[in-house]
Amino acid sequence: MRLATLRLDGGTAAVRVDSDTSATVVDGYADLSALLNDPDWKTVAEQAAGAVVDLAGADYAPVVPNPGKIVCVGLNYGTHIQEMGRELPEYPTLFSKFKEALTGAYDDVIVPAYAASQLDWEAELAVVVGKRAYQVPEADADAYIAGYSVINDYTMRDYQYRTLQWDQGKTFEKTSGFGPILDTDYRLGTTIETRLEGEVMQSATTDDLVFTPAKLVDYISHIVTLQPGDVIITGTTGGVGHARKPARYIGDGDTVEVSIEGLGSVRNKTIVK
Amino acid sequence: MRLATLRLDGGTAAVRVDSDTSATVVDGYADLSALLNDPDWKTVAEQAAGAVVDLAGADYAPVVPNPGKIVCVGLNYGTHIQEMGRELPEYPTLFSKFKEALTGAYDDVIVPAYAASQLDWEAELAVVVGKRAYQVPEADADAYIAGYSVINDYTMRDYQYRTLQWDQGKTFEKTSGFGPILDTDYRLGTTIETRLEGEVMQSATTDDLVFTPAKLVDYISHIVTLQPGDVIITGTTGGVGHARKPARYIGDGDTVEVSIEGLGSVRNKTIVK
Repeated sequence: MRLATLRLDGGTAAVRVDSDTSATVVDGYADLSALLNDPDWKTVAEQAAGAVVDLAGADYAPVVPNPGKIVCVGLNYGTHIQEMGRELPEYPTLFSKFKEALTGAYDDVIVPAYAASQLDWEAELAVVVGKRAYQVPEADADAYIAGYSVINDYTMRDYQYRTLQWDQGKTFEKTSGFGPILDTDYRLGTTIETRLEGEVMQSATTDDLVFTPAKLVDYISHIVTLQPGDVIITGTTGGVGHARKPARYIGDGDTVEVSIEGLGSVRNKTIVK
Repeated sequence: MRLATLRLDGGTAAVRVDSDTSATVVDGYADLSALLNDPDWKTVAEQAAGAVVDLAGADYAPVVPNPGKIVCVGLNYGTHIQEMGRELPEYPTLFSKFKEALTGAYDDVIVPAYAASQLDWEAELAVVVGKRAYQVPEADADAYIAGYSVINDYTMRDYQYRTLQWDQGKTFEKTSGFGPILDTDYRLGTTIETRLEGEVMQSATTDDLVFTPAKLVDYISHIVTLQPGDVIITGTTGGVGHARKPARYIGDGDTVEVSIEGLGSVRNKTIVK
């Protein structure tokens, strides 16, 4: 099943995506954050019979717009770890992004001029939690995952490296395209790519993850409770702009597309203001 | 004015603290997170005339139990920066803590045995946001601060240093005592202290902050919107256990008290399970 949050009639609505062109409103839920907080969310979504929406020209909000937390994983693809000159890690590197950093799958990203000098992309698979998880072992973890989506972990590299802690370069307002859909049936192993103005910058497959979604649910839930609608973004692969020689950054007017085969793309134009 | 969130009658309630022994329920608001999201929160609290509660034996919830984000500042007291062997910073070091890490001012802290080997304290002044703030200059920042409170930025040092990013050592479930009250009139410059089983471990004054609350609102709000009820915890001073020679950690059964003159104390016993 595929789900999305659409901007509709001055608000938003949770929808079930029935085909490439048609979706059904899940009445009573303003977005997927609200829906996932209903323990019966899956049945509710399967049985939804609200208004039918034409997806041509649909306006996608961040697919899960209001997560209680977004746990980001660094250094989680073998190729990216190697390009950064590091060894394979024993533990996942965790940092975080605030929900205000999220934006819709096709929204323009407006960047203030003071933060626009080293704009970079990071193609990532997002894992959305479907059920409260505390101290869940890896073997049971899949049952706590609602589904998967695409995110661009948009990064201000200068802010990221101003201090030892990365968070401030990872959480600029409305910069991380997230969506377009949540797929409850996705399986690891498809192609993940970034294109800058159409040129391929990153390309890998999602089974190159050092720490899989199940391992991450295990590790994180032994620290803190994962709640329905929380998001884990699983790290990026080789090919980020900052690591290129010479470095490449996103310029004013550039469009970055991050795609995962089977999940679709987020495609955002950057505008510096 | 002093405000708190109390556990009452199987739920919680926002209260105005009228004296050392008495508080008044602010009817209609389950906690200070809910109250601060009312733009008229200050007037509502001042005029509240609900049930009167005897504070003797009151059960304090985390003072703001449901912040949308908790922005943590590292390396922000001159003395602590020096003990860690670092130079005064040009930019604040920011990381984050998830709201599930909060606990009440006098709650026991239950730590799983796998995470109990290097438990440490960090006495911190917490700043609570009172109004939506985006790109607010330092000179205007005070108007966006609802008030101040006390927090123990309880830290698992082994997890903090497992990777380059500190977050995972800072956000264990229900470990950070936060409260007991939010004071809207606090002014910097009073004593902040930690006591481990009564022995003073940290002692400084809150005007030793390199980045003041107003500077932090300016800096952070130029990255991301601060929302009402969000929390900024402003970093700790010298005297943490991990930096002592020999190192000192919190043991099973130990009580840590963090106090700020004028704001009161959080006092939590650690139990390893």
